[in-house]
Amino acid sequence: MNTQAMPSAYAELHKRHQRLHHLTHLKSIAEWDQSANMPAKGNEARSLALAEMGGLLHQLATEPALKALLDAAEQEPLDADQRANLREMRRVWRASNALPQELVEAKSLAGSRCEHAWRGQRQANDWTGYLPNLREVIKLAREEANYLADSTGLSRYDALMDQYEPGMRSAEVDRVFGDLRSWLPALIQNVRAKQATETVREPVGSFSKTAQRALGLDAMRLMGFDFEAGRLDESAHPFCGGVPEDVRMTTRYREDNFLPSLMGTIHETGHGRYEQNRPREWLGQPLSEARSMGLHESQSLSFEMQLGSHPAFAKLLSPLLNQHFGAQPAFEAGNVHGLLTRVNPGLIRVDADEVTYPAHIILRFEIERALIEGQIECDDIPALWDAKMMELLGLDTRGNFKDGCMQDVHWGCGLVGYFPCYTLGAMYAAQWFAAMRRAMPDLDAQIGAGNLAPVFDWLKQNIWLQASRYETPELVRRASGEPLNPAHFKAHLQSRYLG
Amino acid sequence: MNTQAMPSAYAELHKRHQRLHHLTHLKSIAEWDQSANMPAKGNEARSLALAEMGGLLHQLATEPALKALLDAAEQEPLDADQRANLREMRRVWRASNALPQELVEAKSLAGSRCEHAWRGQRQANDWTGYLPNLREVIKLAREEANYLADSTGLSRYDALMDQYEPGMRSAEVDRVFGDLRSWLPALIQNVRAKQATETVREPVGSFSKTAQRALGLDAMRLMGFDFEAGRLDESAHPFCGGVPEDVRMTTRYREDNFLPSLMGTIHETGHGRYEQNRPREWLGQPLSEARSMGLHESQSLSFEMQLGSHPAFAKLLSPLLNQHFGAQPAFEAGNVHGLLTRVNPGLIRVDADEVTYPAHIILRFEIERALIEGQIECDDIPALWDAKMMELLGLDTRGNFKDGCMQDVHWGCGLVGYFPCYTLGAMYAAQWFAAMRRAMPDLDAQIGAGNLAPVFDWLKQNIWLQASRYETPELVRRASGEPLNPAHFKAHLQSRYLG
Repeated sequence: MNTQAMPSAYAELHKRHQRLHHLTHLKSIAEWDQSANMPAKGNEARSLALAEMGGLLHQLATEPALKALLDAAEQEPLDADQRANLREMRRVWRASNALPQELVEAKSLAGSRCEHAWRGQRQANDWTGYLPNLREVIKLAREEANYLADSTGLSRYDALMDQYEPGMRSAEVDRVFGDLRSWLPALIQNVRAKQATETVREPVGSFSKTAQRALGLDAMRLMGFDFEAGRLDESAHPFCGGVPEDVRMTTRYREDNFLPSLMGTIHETGHGRYEQNRPREWLGQPLSEARSMGLHESQSLSFEMQLGSHPAFAKLLSPLLNQHFGAQPAFEAGNVHGLLTRVNPGLIRVDADEVTYPAHIILRFEIERALIEGQIECDDIPALWDAKMMELLGLDTRGNFKDGCMQDVHWGCGLVGYFPCYTLGAMYAAQWFAAMRRAMPDLDAQIGAGNLAPVFDWLKQNIWLQASRYETPELVRRASGEPLNPAHFKAHLQSRYLG
Repeated sequence: MNTQAMPSAYAELHKRHQRLHHLTHLKSIAEWDQSANMPAKGNEARSLALAEMGGLLHQLATEPALKALLDAAEQEPLDADQRANLREMRRVWRASNALPQELVEAKSLAGSRCEHAWRGQRQANDWTGYLPNLREVIKLAREEANYLADSTGLSRYDALMDQYEPGMRSAEVDRVFGDLRSWLPALIQNVRAKQATETVREPVGSFSKTAQRALGLDAMRLMGFDFEAGRLDESAHPFCGGVPEDVRMTTRYREDNFLPSLMGTIHETGHGRYEQNRPREWLGQPLSEARSMGLHESQSLSFEMQLGSHPAFAKLLSPLLNQHFGAQPAFEAGNVHGLLTRVNPGLIRVDADEVTYPAHIILRFEIERALIEGQIECDDIPALWDAKMMELLGLDTRGNFKDGCMQDVHWGCGLVGYFPCYTLGAMYAAQWFAAMRRAMPDLDAQIGAGNLAPVFDWLKQNIWLQASRYETPELVRRASGEPLNPAHFKAHLQSRYLG
């Protein structure tokens, strides 16, 4: 983009964001490498290098000149996209300036310490050991919430959530999760009753890493991943990192079960394609950023759940499984679909199926909001957890901290207000597919014929290329013709699991 | 290191170099990734990110405050290591400030363009197409040499060479290469006559990449590489990159011949161990840097040639070859040694054996010096090349630019004054082993018994841990008791090839 044609304050801001983009590129690749490649003794130097870069980026994002530039650019003649970009520049600037450096550092330190100790404490089911560390992190998260609430005028919990899901408010989450809460437990019971009468054949393994990797690469090709602009590697915790021009996805392999890696890879491919298809001419500018964590999750879940667990998709997977592992009866398409849609209430969120997953999120949302708003203390978490698990999924977790309130790392490392994004993502994904079906009534037949392009084209035009051009409510309305509507998620689950 | 105990100007310099070290870390890892992992479409964004970081590092290294800090630190009470570090800080500062930014950028651009076109032109044997690009690069290299000569008081060629081999002067190169030139052609003839009477069995392949990689990793273990502080990957052009705390070596595989990858891997392991064993408590400071390109090459050649082609080393390789490729007669130890020491004058430098290699370097040194000093022009290169190839190796290269003066990328991308380092490295390596044998008369027996530790310990104490504490002549004297002495290289070749 030619910055000489831009008004001067805006052009200067544009240049500075481009610079941040270039430097962030190196940080992102080094972070991916840290998880995917780095040997043990490299960690100290890498951590110091990343911290140095983090400090430098924060310094560049908070330079005093920026405020005047942002104000001056408001007065300049900008087109609609430039104005949207300026709105996002201000959001980035506000977020960078909202917190005192000491609080950011103290929270990062307390979070690292708590997470480090948590690894052992979780294994040992040691809630008592964990509690003081968690209290310290939550104390700092409450301070963070106070600062952010002051700077945004939002409630404390909303101010935290706004970092991950800009514009989302807990009143809205209450509305959609309240709806969900009203029908989910009964739906789970009905699905369980129906599935009790069905049999699904277990695949017979083991499944070599080499074959699983080849299968995963084929699945990525099927899902349209651009291998000239990204890679698949291995890491302990799968993620999608790198940069939009060079997306670095990771997975991990279990030789006794290929499904977690396969479906995890399809999930990350959704994140990956969103990144690969952010508007190219805007890369480096805030307008090009993915809209939110919930929107990002709506892409990975569009891939993993809406498409990946679609009955017709099993027909595409079946020949790939026969090819990579050798044919066996469990790989028959109907059985593959059965494997991918079994519903089993369980203790662990990350292992949960599509139907019971939202229960795990509702529980966490209700607890973390009360925690941040000061209605409960960390000590109250286990009892609340037990009560809600019994109510939502009928499971007894008393005394089982390991698989209960200590299972996730989020709170321990200071990430509060993030959990709703997972289920908001699932709802958005269902809403996208409902909109697609209205626009393309033969969509399911197309998927059945192995033609996934209409799905990808719709997501590309309506989500990927829109990036952060619009705030979320407008993006959602433009894409689907209505605000966030949990009825689509309900209809999706009913149709797939009880239809 | 506690900077509070340091005098203040020195402490400030120390802190700034530590910062450069952290930021350079990210650049080094991204550069390694660019060669080892990056897909095609990632290149533009990566290049921009690296250029941004290059500019930032240059800006930090030339901040106006540095001059006063360096001068003030000279007056502070420093211990011997701190004073050596200050000397190296000044060298870095002088190098960073010697050239106008526009020249650096123009040369980088012209070099990139010339190199890019060279890839096709070399294939097409197109000297006429290449010549105008080369003229432009050499014009800029001459300007660079003028600036560096002005700032250092050296001759133009010496000023260029000083960037890679600090302290080395062409008078010294003349002395040692002149000696070499006097006996090398006759030695080559004698070795060729001797080897004409010997038969060496060719290994029967192909050799799978998987088996070659496993063999390479075993060889690296044998050579003491620390896999907790480094990795082996693949790239089109093998190199040793990364950071001292996390060394990233690469190799490439040919399925018809395992020797280039195996010996290349052993070569890079020499570079890698030097990097892994630079003084830990000084990392980030100029004192900890590898002393020079020639010294670096002396380590890779100590590994590849002095050790790797040692008759006793073949006995260590032989069982590894049998293990990874299956036993065959060519893997018998004596035959392996024969394979590793065959002498064949050829056109291509990078394919040359240990005996004919220096002829390729002498030729390049003589031409590039005359070019920089203005005694010849680019147009004169082919005729000079042909004459010297005939004189030194008895080979006719007339009209064959592809395998003649267009074979290397160095001049085309503006690297002039570097070539001598390769043969200086070979001479230093021979000198180290002569010193080791004086200190440990049973060295060859130890190597024969598979005990390589005495070699590694000697290199670690005398070279690796010394880093840039001393200037090269003093380092060489301290390590080997005498200045650079080509007699050791001659004795080594005579003993190995005619003994």
